[in-house]
Amino acid sequence: MADFESIAKQFVEYYYKTFDENRNNLAPLYRDESMLTFEATPCQGTSAIVSKLSELPFQRIEHQVATIDAQPSNTTGGIIVVVSGALLVEEERRPMSYTQTFQLMPNDQGSYFVFNDVFRLVYPAA
Amino acid sequence: MADFESIAKQFVEYYYKTFDENRNNLAPLYRDESMLTFEATPCQGTSAIVSKLSELPFQRIEHQVATIDAQPSNTTGGIIVVVSGALLVEEERRPMSYTQTFQLMPNDQGSYFVFNDVFRLVYPAA
Repeated sequence: MADFESIAKQFVEYYYKTFDENRNNLAPLYRDESMLTFEATPCQGTSAIVSKLSELPFQRIEHQVATIDAQPSNTTGGIIVVVSGALLVEEERRPMSYTQTFQLMPNDQGSYFVFNDVFRLVYPAA
Repeated sequence: MADFESIAKQFVEYYYKTFDENRNNLAPLYRDESMLTFEATPCQGTSAIVSKLSELPFQRIEHQVATIDAQPSNTTGGIIVVVSGALLVEEERRPMSYTQTFQLMPNDQGSYFVFNDVFRLVYPAA
C-alpha cells in the first residue's frame, strides 16, 4: 500500500483536476456522512456537497497548489491533508490564496473517500 | 457536553493565548502519539513538538485569529479545527497570514489533546 504522503499527493492532484474540469464529477469522492464547510457554510452528504460546489458562481476555475501536508489521522488508515494554494476564477488575473483541509478515510474498495472538507479563502493580513 | 464548535473555539483561544505567553506551557496539550508538521518539518511526541515550538526564532509573537471552522472527525468525539489568521512577530508591524489545522481527540479526563497539528504560512498569491 502506498504511504500516506503519496496518497495525499495523488488525491490532491486528482481532486483539483476534477474540480477544474467538471466539479459534478467529484460526487464519487463523497458519501452521505461526508461534511463540507465552505467559507463557513456547512453541508453534509454527497448530494448537498456537490450541489454546493456546482452552484459556486463561476464557470472557469483553476487551482494552483502551493503546499500539501499530510499526517495519519487515526489508527485505521485515515489521512489528514492540508493544502494551500491559489485560485484563479473566470478571466481574473489576480489569484486569491486559499487553504483546504481534508480528512480521507479508507473505503472498502482499497481507495478513499472524503470524510471532512474545510475550505477557506485566506486574505492578505492587513 | 459542549458541542464541537464551542470546544473548537475554546481550544483555539486557549492555545494561542498560551502560545503567545509561554509556548513551553503547551506541553500538556500534546502526547507521545501527537504529530506536528510545521512549515513542512514533521515531528512527533510532546518533547519533540514543544522543543520545535520553543526553538522558533522569535521571542515575541502574537496570533490574531480570523476564522475558526470545526467538524466532527470520527464517531468517538474527535474534532477537526481549521484556523486562519495573522501572525505578528517581534517588532514587525506587517503581519503574515497563516493557517493551522488541528485534530483534537478526547482524553480520559473529559478534555482533549492534540493528535494532529499542521502549520503553514500562507503567502499572498502572486
